[in-house]
Amino acid sequence: MTDAPFKSLDQFRALLRDLPGPDTEAQAAALARNGQLTKPPGALGQLETLAIWVSGWHGTATPRIVSPQVAVFAGNHGVCAQGVSAFPPEVTAQMVANFEAGGAAINQLCNAVGAELSVHAIELDRPTADFTKDPAMSEDEVVHALTIGWQALDQAADLFVAGEMGIGNTTSAAALAHALFGASAADWTGRGTGVDAQGLARKVYAVARGVDLHMAASLDGLDLLRRLGGRELAAIAGSIAAARQAGIPVILDGFICSAAAACLENVQPGLLDHCVAGHVSAEAGHARLLEALGKPPLLALDLRLGEGSGAATAIALVKAAVECHSGMATFAEAGVAEG
Amino acid sequence: MTDAPFKSLDQFRALLRDLPGPDTEAQAAALARNGQLTKPPGALGQLETLAIWVSGWHGTATPRIVSPQVAVFAGNHGVCAQGVSAFPPEVTAQMVANFEAGGAAINQLCNAVGAELSVHAIELDRPTADFTKDPAMSEDEVVHALTIGWQALDQAADLFVAGEMGIGNTTSAAALAHALFGASAADWTGRGTGVDAQGLARKVYAVARGVDLHMAASLDGLDLLRRLGGRELAAIAGSIAAARQAGIPVILDGFICSAAAACLENVQPGLLDHCVAGHVSAEAGHARLLEALGKPPLLALDLRLGEGSGAATAIALVKAAVECHSGMATFAEAGVAEG
Repeated sequence: MTDAPFKSLDQFRALLRDLPGPDTEAQAAALARNGQLTKPPGALGQLETLAIWVSGWHGTATPRIVSPQVAVFAGNHGVCAQGVSAFPPEVTAQMVANFEAGGAAINQLCNAVGAELSVHAIELDRPTADFTKDPAMSEDEVVHALTIGWQALDQAADLFVAGEMGIGNTTSAAALAHALFGASAADWTGRGTGVDAQGLARKVYAVARGVDLHMAASLDGLDLLRRLGGRELAAIAGSIAAARQAGIPVILDGFICSAAAACLENVQPGLLDHCVAGHVSAEAGHARLLEALGKPPLLALDLRLGEGSGAATAIALVKAAVECHSGMATFAEAGVAEG
Repeated sequence: MTDAPFKSLDQFRALLRDLPGPDTEAQAAALARNGQLTKPPGALGQLETLAIWVSGWHGTATPRIVSPQVAVFAGNHGVCAQGVSAFPPEVTAQMVANFEAGGAAINQLCNAVGAELSVHAIELDRPTADFTKDPAMSEDEVVHALTIGWQALDQAADLFVAGEMGIGNTTSAAALAHALFGASAADWTGRGTGVDAQGLARKVYAVARGVDLHMAASLDGLDLLRRLGGRELAAIAGSIAAARQAGIPVILDGFICSAAAACLENVQPGLLDHCVAGHVSAEAGHARLLEALGKPPLLALDLRLGEGSGAATAIALVKAAVECHSGMATFAEAGVAEG
């Protein structure tokens, strides 16, 4: 476990402004290699782009993905008191137990792609405050959650996914997206795990009230994360920042993960250059959020589960991309005419 | 190797009309199981649909994918004389050697998903006839190629992909799509491996002339396959029919594979029920062709390589789907509230 190099939100904010970029020489070498591989130019489409992107973060023209990591963070939300979810808050802890027992979707998806899975339940017995009335977290609480995320990253991972579990957390994500990108509360608010029409109306109302209460021009993404977010969202943000520090590429999961990531991008534009969007989920606001972040999704399979499930599924695509890039013969090696 | 149960095009045609359907009891059991898994209803989106589809063909409510097979068929095309490709015909044999040496994209993709790869070069020194002048194949030739495809299927496979290599074969596929589904020659004709604007014009002209010469209302998909297709397209058709006979689900690859499959569907609507579209390629006519077949693609990564590459990449998605479906705990098993 790495010691987190911050003890306050201001120190974390300063850190975000000074994180390293990709190895542009490795990227250029990968681009040159790509042009020599035994295929028509561009014929592997987005797999080519992905491989060159990984090359920059791994610092080599021939990267491999052999140790992907999925870290799932769980938290509980005071805003559940507003009747915003189809499931009771107890399900958060029940699902954490399911992750630990190997019975959830994310367990099977990690097995399928050979990813290490770690599960981080963050004070499930202490939900965040109801953000329609108070800031969700104190400074100490959000820094604690950021630190858990930072430390959850396996420094030996070569690809990272942050997943989440937290009844009520699409409400929190919708509030963050609304505060960061405007539009209306309804534009960002969807059915989550499957709330009914009345629940959806309550959810939109909670999002609108929360943003009305907390929004101010002087606040940045980290302030909003503290006021409207959740412990698992803060942990996701911490882990994504840690991955950037370590040069580990990241696949973003769905709406909640993307909202947490957007808080970082708000503080330091370009901070998410080490991230691709694994998928666009069926949750109403996700496509809009990815567009706001400039992150086209790799997959569009109508998932809306969370847990990191969409991003974990997309690990297979990044693996396929680097396997082609690093394993294929060049025209010269294979004696194939270049056309 | 299975003896092929046909010796003529008429026998193959009759066979297509009598292939088995899915196990609807296993499908119903899988659907029931899906409703009990620890996730909100529908939250795994298309992965749920895929798992239930596999269940029907495997005849069990808890299928697994442990032995996927990719068979790549190669052939040469007389229509290359019309200047329709960016690469010379010699590249077909050079790429077959590359497949056999393990240097091509499809080799890496098969390694990445744990698929068995077989390569079937079909009389590369005897291109088909130029279909702008004569039928591409005689009856004996097309039956021979169908037989190679039929026999290439590994009966122990639990998921099958047919790939192809053949300089000139997007021209053949465009002619088949045009003959089967109408519209104009230009609607189906794209840049293939990267032909320039003049080459594209020659290609559209070749497609239009070929269809003008061979099209007649009395002809079905198999007649057209003989007249406008190629040896590797016929082999793909044979292998897809064999997979249906064996109850093995299939992931369709790109434009060429889909055109070959469309010939079967033309003879017997519903014949492709055991197939899903692995991806939509960047080749101009593929999206239109998938729409005509009613097969929405799993992936859209702008691939246009062939070799089975898009479908092989999609194997990971089908694996992910069945792993979730067959491996997840039910609400009762995990002690999770159903909401």
